[in-house]
Amino acid sequence: VLRHRPYERTPKAAMDRAAAALGRAFGPSKLLVGVEACAAFGGDESLQPDVPPDAVVLAEDEDDVARALAVAAEGEVPITPRGAGTGKTGGAIPVAGGIVLATTGLRSIVEIDREELVAVVEPGVVLADFQAAVEAEGLFYGPDPNSLATCAIGGNLAENAGGPRAFKYGVTRDWVRGLEVVTIGGARLSTGRRTAKGVTGYDVTALLVGSEGTLAVTTRATLRLVAKPPAVATLLALFDDVRGAGRAVSAIIAAGLVPRCLELFDAPTLAAVRAKGVAVDARAGAMLLLEVDGDPVGCELAMERTGAVCADAGAIDVLAAQDAAQRDRLWDARRMLSHATRAMARFKVSEDVVVPRAKIPDLLADVDRIAEATRVRMLTYGHAGDGNLHVNLLWDDADDEPRVADALERLFRAVIALRGTLSGEHGIGLAKAEFLPLEQSDELIDLQRRLKAVFDPKGLLNPHKIFPRRTHGPC
Amino acid sequence: VLRHRPYERTPKAAMDRAAAALGRAFGPSKLLVGVEACAAFGGDESLQPDVPPDAVVLAEDEDDVARALAVAAEGEVPITPRGAGTGKTGGAIPVAGGIVLATTGLRSIVEIDREELVAVVEPGVVLADFQAAVEAEGLFYGPDPNSLATCAIGGNLAENAGGPRAFKYGVTRDWVRGLEVVTIGGARLSTGRRTAKGVTGYDVTALLVGSEGTLAVTTRATLRLVAKPPAVATLLALFDDVRGAGRAVSAIIAAGLVPRCLELFDAPTLAAVRAKGVAVDARAGAMLLLEVDGDPVGCELAMERTGAVCADAGAIDVLAAQDAAQRDRLWDARRMLSHATRAMARFKVSEDVVVPRAKIPDLLADVDRIAEATRVRMLTYGHAGDGNLHVNLLWDDADDEPRVADALERLFRAVIALRGTLSGEHGIGLAKAEFLPLEQSDELIDLQRRLKAVFDPKGLLNPHKIFPRRTHGPC
Repeated sequence: VLRHRPYERTPKAAMDRAAAALGRAFGPSKLLVGVEACAAFGGDESLQPDVPPDAVVLAEDEDDVARALAVAAEGEVPITPRGAGTGKTGGAIPVAGGIVLATTGLRSIVEIDREELVAVVEPGVVLADFQAAVEAEGLFYGPDPNSLATCAIGGNLAENAGGPRAFKYGVTRDWVRGLEVVTIGGARLSTGRRTAKGVTGYDVTALLVGSEGTLAVTTRATLRLVAKPPAVATLLALFDDVRGAGRAVSAIIAAGLVPRCLELFDAPTLAAVRAKGVAVDARAGAMLLLEVDGDPVGCELAMERTGAVCADAGAIDVLAAQDAAQRDRLWDARRMLSHATRAMARFKVSEDVVVPRAKIPDLLADVDRIAEATRVRMLTYGHAGDGNLHVNLLWDDADDEPRVADALERLFRAVIALRGTLSGEHGIGLAKAEFLPLEQSDELIDLQRRLKAVFDPKGLLNPHKIFPRRTHGPC
Repeated sequence: VLRHRPYERTPKAAMDRAAAALGRAFGPSKLLVGVEACAAFGGDESLQPDVPPDAVVLAEDEDDVARALAVAAEGEVPITPRGAGTGKTGGAIPVAGGIVLATTGLRSIVEIDREELVAVVEPGVVLADFQAAVEAEGLFYGPDPNSLATCAIGGNLAENAGGPRAFKYGVTRDWVRGLEVVTIGGARLSTGRRTAKGVTGYDVTALLVGSEGTLAVTTRATLRLVAKPPAVATLLALFDDVRGAGRAVSAIIAAGLVPRCLELFDAPTLAAVRAKGVAVDARAGAMLLLEVDGDPVGCELAMERTGAVCADAGAIDVLAAQDAAQRDRLWDARRMLSHATRAMARFKVSEDVVVPRAKIPDLLADVDRIAEATRVRMLTYGHAGDGNLHVNLLWDDADDEPRVADALERLFRAVIALRGTLSGEHGIGLAKAEFLPLEQSDELIDLQRRLKAVFDPKGLLNPHKIFPRRTHGPC
């Protein structure tokens, strides 16, 4: 269950016909053909094995997207949309070969409307570029996944990306007002609205966000903005252990405080941070990285109150970042965790499970038990305010994978037993498709398959994702 | 187009069989049969004519809901879910007769979890009762439609209800984590999650919220809560005219202020308020009612800044409510508007159009032009922060209705031309179904009909709502 078993590739004859049709539709600057030429478009940031597609369309506008989706439908070959390839669950891997439709060439920030607090963007815009553009206007866009320097907004929409600031500001879906998408076959659809409110018809926009590229391909998104908070302050709170940190999280919530970030580091994670040369008090067995924002007066006040609550909850020490440089260092330490932990072993899986936030200590105790029982190295950090934790499983020997798979299944079962959910921000993709029935009933899974069929009756758009493998019938 | 033309009623033979099946499933305390007995269950707060159903099931639990939906499917008769009947667009009217499934008997607040900031409620809970219960725990639930003293949460979910506080706190969908629903035929489905985040599968929960009872019947909702803001302050700002008030709204947004309410009253609405004995400065031709909240220091600060921005934007006067009693009087004046305006004429339609907020002065100019051209009395108030305005059309003579219908269509066309939407909080129901194609493409409407068919292939659940009437084929 750690790596997907190979799927049947698109039959050569059908793919040859489709490639010929692509050749008529696109010049060579927009088209790659053959698995060698396409090799760079077969993987993502997950553990899933790469599968090179047979052809790649490098779309530059909506017409290109529509043409590619028309060729795929006409030729009945699979087509898999792709953003920056930073996904963690194999969502962008073209497991049945066929066409990859890269949308990174649609990279215009079409509009930033300061008065309406709305932006219109294309899917290939890199998140950090978009944030810089809106912040230059004194505005703010909430979602901040760890990969923000490289990930594309199209992928954020597909996976409903979150990030540390989600505790206060919500996830991508909370910022999407409307979408322009193209469905398999090439039909264009405009969903949602530009205005703050709108209840005209079903919320097709919300259905599309987080659908992992299985329902339609986004060509434009209308996003909500807010005013940029004038002040931000960052705090570190050190604790003996994760139980103390968990108590502080509960106390912060109980006090009615809403820091924008509330990040937890467990003991093995702190060791990884120290190993990267960041000085952290040796007594600390757990840490919270907190960030508050607002107007300068409110922010100052919130920082003081948050620090006091942490101290009351038993923090060994509470430290405020003294300036922007120190803040950046703290966040660099947080952001490098994903890569630092990858460097700690030959193989890594990073999960993004969610439990009710008061259950974080229980989950961490479960993680300890599972690590011991399966002898798999595990370390945990993440968005404690949301109960959304990145549990990382590390191993060096491919022969250990049955034990890792066992640990993973135990982790998911523990999460569900705590009334949690399998994924807070990475999506299901390929990596967790077989675990979906742990959380969702057969009826709900079947309903979702039928919703997919409304958009994509032949199952050509990003096939084999989200839902468990079927022994027969369409994906 | 003002009132729906009658739909074909359920054939008597089919209904007799279904009534007999209901008689076997439910005792007399839960079942009403015959149009006389059921007359009170045929209407809502819209202008749409009542249509009494043939039978009413007064459900008390999920089993009752499932049994009623099984009988409807088995007998192929329409079934229309009903909450408190406070809807504004005919959503709860059983236009084809058949069964009404009243969920007001499911009225338990199952759980309020202070630590997780989550509540679980049944659909028959009255919103004000729920708010009182969560506020007694120091918590807060955002949505506050005008009908909060009587409306049921089930109806709020069906219509994705908003209210004045939506400017800061969002609408019902923003507060729903998960749902338990029953589909036609009686199958139970649990969607969504209890945790803060979750991206497992498609967002079926978001699709269900706002689906106007056409996809499934809610039996439980898991709702998000936040800490109750410790301080609230209310301000009135008076202006010469609506252009001045519009300028102030834009200036408040530009200053990065986020009052929780930002309500606009135009000149005819102020006249209605004065006629009810509320003293408002005679010079004022428009008014903003503003509310800010937060911690006491931040709230005080926000009130001062908001008042200053209004003054700079040319307010004649800015008044702060001095105490809770004065605040309540101001809000009473706002809440009575719906009834006060109804008393001003024999007939009233209250629309809930939305435009980009900077376009409010343009919309109000359009309203003036339309009122003059069609000789229909119109008055406007509502949620200026969201650009969501209640445009009220008033008339006394039924013979005037062709002119009113003309005015309504002109209004909707003006709203769409300003890049707005037909409905911000009332839904489409029967009242606006024929106007849907003004806003949405045929392709999007067709897609939504097919999404409905996934849940309800025979079109038995709340038929003839949202989508334009078809001359043939299923609704």
